[in-house]
Amino acid sequence: MDFSATKDLFHLPDGVIYLDGNSLGPLPKAALNRVSETITDEWGEMLITGWNKAGWMAKPTKLADRIARLIGAAPGTTVLGDTLSIKVYQALASALELRPDRKVILSDTGNFPTDLYMADGLIRSLNQGHVLKTVAPADVADHINTDLAVLMLTQVDYATGRKHDMAALTKAAHDAGAVVIWDLAHSAGALPVDLAGCDADFAVGCTYKYLNSGPGGPAFIYVAPRHADVVRPALSGWLGHEAPFAFDPDYRAGAGIERMRVGTPPILQIAALEAAMDIWDNADIHQVRAKSIELTELFIKLVEQSCPDLTLATPRDPQTRGSQVSFHFADGYAVMQALIARGVIGDFRAPDIMRFGFTPLYIDETDVRGAVDILADIMATRQWDQPQFKTRSRVT
Amino acid sequence: MDFSATKDLFHLPDGVIYLDGNSLGPLPKAALNRVSETITDEWGEMLITGWNKAGWMAKPTKLADRIARLIGAAPGTTVLGDTLSIKVYQALASALELRPDRKVILSDTGNFPTDLYMADGLIRSLNQGHVLKTVAPADVADHINTDLAVLMLTQVDYATGRKHDMAALTKAAHDAGAVVIWDLAHSAGALPVDLAGCDADFAVGCTYKYLNSGPGGPAFIYVAPRHADVVRPALSGWLGHEAPFAFDPDYRAGAGIERMRVGTPPILQIAALEAAMDIWDNADIHQVRAKSIELTELFIKLVEQSCPDLTLATPRDPQTRGSQVSFHFADGYAVMQALIARGVIGDFRAPDIMRFGFTPLYIDETDVRGAVDILADIMATRQWDQPQFKTRSRVT
Repeated sequence: MDFSATKDLFHLPDGVIYLDGNSLGPLPKAALNRVSETITDEWGEMLITGWNKAGWMAKPTKLADRIARLIGAAPGTTVLGDTLSIKVYQALASALELRPDRKVILSDTGNFPTDLYMADGLIRSLNQGHVLKTVAPADVADHINTDLAVLMLTQVDYATGRKHDMAALTKAAHDAGAVVIWDLAHSAGALPVDLAGCDADFAVGCTYKYLNSGPGGPAFIYVAPRHADVVRPALSGWLGHEAPFAFDPDYRAGAGIERMRVGTPPILQIAALEAAMDIWDNADIHQVRAKSIELTELFIKLVEQSCPDLTLATPRDPQTRGSQVSFHFADGYAVMQALIARGVIGDFRAPDIMRFGFTPLYIDETDVRGAVDILADIMATRQWDQPQFKTRSRVT
Repeated sequence: MDFSATKDLFHLPDGVIYLDGNSLGPLPKAALNRVSETITDEWGEMLITGWNKAGWMAKPTKLADRIARLIGAAPGTTVLGDTLSIKVYQALASALELRPDRKVILSDTGNFPTDLYMADGLIRSLNQGHVLKTVAPADVADHINTDLAVLMLTQVDYATGRKHDMAALTKAAHDAGAVVIWDLAHSAGALPVDLAGCDADFAVGCTYKYLNSGPGGPAFIYVAPRHADVVRPALSGWLGHEAPFAFDPDYRAGAGIERMRVGTPPILQIAALEAAMDIWDNADIHQVRAKSIELTELFIKLVEQSCPDLTLATPRDPQTRGSQVSFHFADGYAVMQALIARGVIGDFRAPDIMRFGFTPLYIDETDVRGAVDILADIMATRQWDQPQFKTRSRVT
C-alpha cells in the first residue's frame, strides 16, 4: 500500500499532528461531496422515494458488508445501526437467551464503561439473578468456567491499548459452554480481526474511530451465521421485522442479520461512512497493521528516550496491543492540553493516561517524530505547568 | 405567519406536489450549508475537539429544547437521540418500573407497529407476566382501569390520521393510577401538543417527518419533571451517566433528562435538524394547525366531489384528526404509483390506504387543487389500471 497516497485522501488541518483517530477519525476529503449529493440529489430531489431509488433502505447491510471484510466476517453477517451502546445491549440480551440456565457475565475492568453500564441496565431489567463479574484483564482466562453464560470483552483496551487474544479466549469460553461477545471499537480498522476464524458468536463495533465515518456515525453488529436465525432480538424494531411494510401487528423476526436492525437508519451519517469505506475498500488491513506496529514502536522508543518522566501504560510487545500507545503521568491532563495547544492532538483518560492513536492511512513517521519533539519540549520545559492547561473544562 | 415565505425556505423539486411530509419532510434549503459547515469547519478542522468547541456534546439537549416549545414541554425535559423505536423501549421500560405491581400495557390497533413490537420485545425480556393489550382506538377509554400499568398510545394514527384526545385519556389513565406514554411521531410539528398541560408522563417522537430533519434524523424523548430524577434508564449508556468522562466502572444516572441519553449523538443528522429548527423557531404552531385544517378540509371536499370511488378513512371532524387525510381504495397501491408517476407524492399503507400529508410550511391551496386534479384524472381514466403501477417492488 502507498500510505502517502491514502494520507492525501484525508483532510488534516494545517499545523496539526492528529494522534486521536482512535477516538474520532479525520474527514475523508470525499465525504463532503458524498454527503452533499445525498442531501441535494437524494433527499432534496427524491424525497420519500429515496428509500428505494437511492437504495437508502439497503445501505445498513451493504455498508456493513464492506466493514465485514476488515473483521473477518462473511457477507450477510453484519449490519449497521444505532450506537455501540445499543448494539452491546442487543448482543448481550440475545446471548443470554442462548444460555438460559447460566447467570454469569464475565468482563474485565479494562472494558469501556458503557459496555458495563449497558450490561448492568439489562441485568436489572431482566431481574433473573444475572451477575456481571469484572476481573483484571490478565485474569480473564482464569475465570472462564462452566458457570459462565457470556464472556463479553472489548478486544483492545480503550485506555491502555492492551489487546486480548481473541482466538484463545473464544475457544476457552466455548470449551466451557459460554457464548462470546467481542467489542471491536478499537479493533475495526486498527488491526486484522478474524471473527469467523475465531468462531466468535457476536461482535459489535463503531465506525467513527478508525473507520472515519464522522461524529456519531452508526455502530455495527455481527452475529455468527449459526445464531442469526435463532436469536430473539430484544430490541425488536420494525426494520428487523420479516416484512416491515406489511405493518403486521405481530412481530416476526426477519431472516438472519436483518433482525438486528431496529429503526430508521441515519442516511447522512451513512453517506459519510460510504466515503470512508471507499478508502478502506482499497486498503490491506495486514499492511495497515504492519505499518501501525512500526509507528507505535518508533513512538515508544523516541518518547522513552526523550521523556523519562512518562511511564509506558501499553504492552511493550506489539502483538499484545492495538494501534494506540498510552503513557501514565500524574499531570497527564495538563500535558495533553499543552500538546493540543501546540497542534499535537491526542487525548486524556482519567486518572492519568495520555493516549495517542496511530493510524497509518494518514499518520506517518514524520508525524511521529514531530509529535515526540513537541512532547519532549513540553516535558523538558515544564510548559504544561500553567493554570490554563490544568483547568478541566473539557468534556472529552 | 406568511406561509409563502416559509415555502421558499424548502427545496421542492420541479413538477412535484409533495404530500408525504408526514413520512419524510423535504429539504430545508439551509440544511446543505449547515451540514457542509459541520463537515468542513467542525469535523474537518476541529476534529475531536469539536465535541467541546463546536458544542456537539450539548446539542441533543439544546436542539430538543427547541422542539419542546412545539410540544408543550418545558426546557430541560426533552432530549434527542437514537431512533423512535429505541425511545419507545426506553420510555416503556422506565414507565413499567414506576408501577411494579401492575402488569397490563394498554395500546390500540392503530398504533404504529414498531411501538407494539418494541413493547413485545421488552415484555419477553422482562418475563414478569406483563401483557400488551391492544384494542380498537375508539375503545381505549373503556379499557382504562386499575389493572393498567401503562397506557401507551400514538396520538395520531399513522394510517387513518385519527387523533386521540390526549388530555382526556391522560387524565383517565392517571385517575386509574396508570402511567402514560404518548408517541408524537405524527403530532410534533403537525399540531399543538401540550404535554405539560396534559400532565403526560413520557412522550417520544421523531424529527424527520413534520420537523424536516432528513432521512434517519434522531428521535426525542420527554420525561415529566416529576419522574426525570426518579426513573431508571434500562438503556443505561455512558452519555446518560452522571459523569461520562470520569469512566467510572459503576453506572450512576445523570441528572434529569440527561439520563435518557445513551450513546454518541449523530452530529451530521443533528446539523440538518438545526437548519429545520431555524424555520420552526419562527413558526406559530397554532397558525400551522389552522392552515392545516383549511388544507385538509379543502382536500376532502374536492376529492369527494371528484373521486366517488374513494372512501374517506380519516375522521371528518378536523378536531379529531392530525394533519393527514387518507382514503380507502382497493387498488390504492396502483393509484398511488400512478400519482407518483405524475408528480403527486403521497404514500400507501396496507391493505388499502392512500395517505396524503398536509404541511402548511410548504404546501398551499394551489398544491391541494393541483393534486386533486391529477388524482381525479387518474381515477376517471383508470390510468392506475396498468401493470407497471401494480407491481409491488417498493419497500416504502
